[in-house]
Amino acid sequence: MSLDQSRPSRSVADAVPALADRLARLADQAALTGADVILISPGPDLEYFLGHSVGSHERLTCLVVPAAGGPALLVPTLERPGWSGTPVESLDITISTWTDGEDPYLALAAVLPPRARVLAVDYHMPAVHALNVQAAVPGSELTLAGEAIAELRMRKSEKEIEALAAAGAAIDRVQRRISEWLRAGRTENEVAADIAEAIVAEGHSRPDFVIVGSGPNGASPHHEASDRVIEAGDVVVIDIGGPMPSGYFSDCTRTYVVGPADGEVAADAREVYEIVRRAQAVGVAAVRPGVTAESVDAAARAVIEDAGFGKYFITRTGHGIGMEVHEHPYMVAGNRQVLEPGMAFSVEPGIYLPGRFGVRIEDIVVVGDDGPVLMNTAPTELTVVGAS
Amino acid sequence: MSLDQSRPSRSVADAVPALADRLARLADQAALTGADVILISPGPDLEYFLGHSVGSHERLTCLVVPAAGGPALLVPTLERPGWSGTPVESLDITISTWTDGEDPYLALAAVLPPRARVLAVDYHMPAVHALNVQAAVPGSELTLAGEAIAELRMRKSEKEIEALAAAGAAIDRVQRRISEWLRAGRTENEVAADIAEAIVAEGHSRPDFVIVGSGPNGASPHHEASDRVIEAGDVVVIDIGGPMPSGYFSDCTRTYVVGPADGEVAADAREVYEIVRRAQAVGVAAVRPGVTAESVDAAARAVIEDAGFGKYFITRTGHGIGMEVHEHPYMVAGNRQVLEPGMAFSVEPGIYLPGRFGVRIEDIVVVGDDGPVLMNTAPTELTVVGAS
Repeated sequence: MSLDQSRPSRSVADAVPALADRLARLADQAALTGADVILISPGPDLEYFLGHSVGSHERLTCLVVPAAGGPALLVPTLERPGWSGTPVESLDITISTWTDGEDPYLALAAVLPPRARVLAVDYHMPAVHALNVQAAVPGSELTLAGEAIAELRMRKSEKEIEALAAAGAAIDRVQRRISEWLRAGRTENEVAADIAEAIVAEGHSRPDFVIVGSGPNGASPHHEASDRVIEAGDVVVIDIGGPMPSGYFSDCTRTYVVGPADGEVAADAREVYEIVRRAQAVGVAAVRPGVTAESVDAAARAVIEDAGFGKYFITRTGHGIGMEVHEHPYMVAGNRQVLEPGMAFSVEPGIYLPGRFGVRIEDIVVVGDDGPVLMNTAPTELTVVGAS
Repeated sequence: MSLDQSRPSRSVADAVPALADRLARLADQAALTGADVILISPGPDLEYFLGHSVGSHERLTCLVVPAAGGPALLVPTLERPGWSGTPVESLDITISTWTDGEDPYLALAAVLPPRARVLAVDYHMPAVHALNVQAAVPGSELTLAGEAIAELRMRKSEKEIEALAAAGAAIDRVQRRISEWLRAGRTENEVAADIAEAIVAEGHSRPDFVIVGSGPNGASPHHEASDRVIEAGDVVVIDIGGPMPSGYFSDCTRTYVVGPADGEVAADAREVYEIVRRAQAVGVAAVRPGVTAESVDAAARAVIEDAGFGKYFITRTGHGIGMEVHEHPYMVAGNRQVLEPGMAFSVEPGIYLPGRFGVRIEDIVVVGDDGPVLMNTAPTELTVVGAS
């Protein structure tokens, strides 16, 4: 249902210069990292470099970007029509095909540059393809192209930042409407279904994740939603997002309290909430060009550790975001990546109290010339939503 | 939204003996194929062996099945709660965790059997995990576990065949309702949206693919759906399916003619349709224990070649099906896999006439003791649906 072969040729033509530039820079990255060729399979990396990606189940589709020489694309014959009218036909790329019954790996070996030995594959390439390509090129060696690709994808262009800002605004509109759906007596699944619908209504292509972690379920950071009936007084983590038609993702977390009968939020919930809120603000404030990714993690973590909850902050502080919801750079101990203008990532510290509740607050931040630029503006003050 | 932590413990307990048996047979396969250990990442293989799979974005989750010794499961600390109440806790499996900021590959190396050198990875494992695990085990060698795993997954149990039959019945109900939605004046996308809804209404967890290939679009086998307005007299390929709550997939194609103004189906459409219908029936009839997969392809292909349309049958004849919509065994030239009772796959010959139309008919077939057992029973006679 997603493949519209009558897509407007205008936007295709507009996309070509940026894609050509990315491909040229990827070839430079190959040369820099010692790879003879970079191989990219369907998924977000292919989308980033070709403006289009066709999922091909188990059949091999592969973009070939040599350190020297022009790129090539190998696709299954029966999927060739799906590439018609996409930017690839306006880029300087040789397209070749293989047909069911032929060996796709020999077909790929035939379009590699002669004497290519170091084959760098994208992070997502399924092992079946990576190892079979290697076997088809005697004497070859596999390496990962993921960091070379990340060097490009980490640094967002102005247009990409606009896309992230639009995604942030769309998911913020959903967060601002949470009180329409979140109340005592409903199940997490019921609330999640309404949120999923609103994610699309507010402009996304689809919901990608809808976490409704009420009470003790919120203490599991990747809990999704369940049949648990939400109760008055519950602390509820709402972590939601999805891709926009631009291909760029939103991701925003807010934690709410469901109005208790006496109107009083439990003191411990309020205390934990304010610690997380402070940690998140401090993490965001630490973002600027020249600092390391791990320093952003350390800044947020210090607030929670100083408050005595360090052992309940069991995740890294953040992840890069763009055409994938999780990508480089990661805000995590050990990551000495120096932040540069245009890098985009989440800042999302949390406190997870097993058997009780969790609190997480998450914004997407872009590194600006002088400091952080927030892609999310939904309020972070503790919000109490309607009681039953 | 999909992770229900309050799942009934009854069905979990019921699943355990079959899963334990699969794990034991996988260890045998490792030994047989010379692997010291088989490594499985989230996805259908993990679901098959553990009865549960948690998608973990870029964080490493890995099942370790040594040729000798007990299995182990490594999961990210923050996803550990998602494994509570699943069969893994009732199986004899050591569960260990790694936390953000630690090196997951060193954590995995630590749970491998000492002196493990040949590491066999599942087909789907992303290259980033496969190559980083290899790097963490000095002197190790990567191989593919896909065929060893397929040896098990290809041979469906009685319970799995029941699940495929239920999936077939569900998608057949949708095919029988096509005339409710398919008519001249509507776009492919509109028809596809209605079908997608019906796929869920008839018992699937979600639609996985909805191909509506009208007129010339039907000549591209993997065309999905577009804004093309369907016209009276169009030949329309409808190829649809998705997973059931059991985890098993449906996949069924029928080709329809949209009623022309004069009520007469064009002679060439009728001729091509009947050739494909005969080829499909001949392909199905060729299915029995002891014949090769490629002989099923050859049988169907011969009918189309004899009719002079050989060069317009541009795909293999079929693919295995189970917890994936495409899996082993493939009905394709060169595949000498001998069919055995319990193997399940599609038989779906087609004729694709560029610029004009396509015809494909597809049923899922299980190899019975004496011949084919059809999972689909929607009629294959040429059906003309309502004119505008």
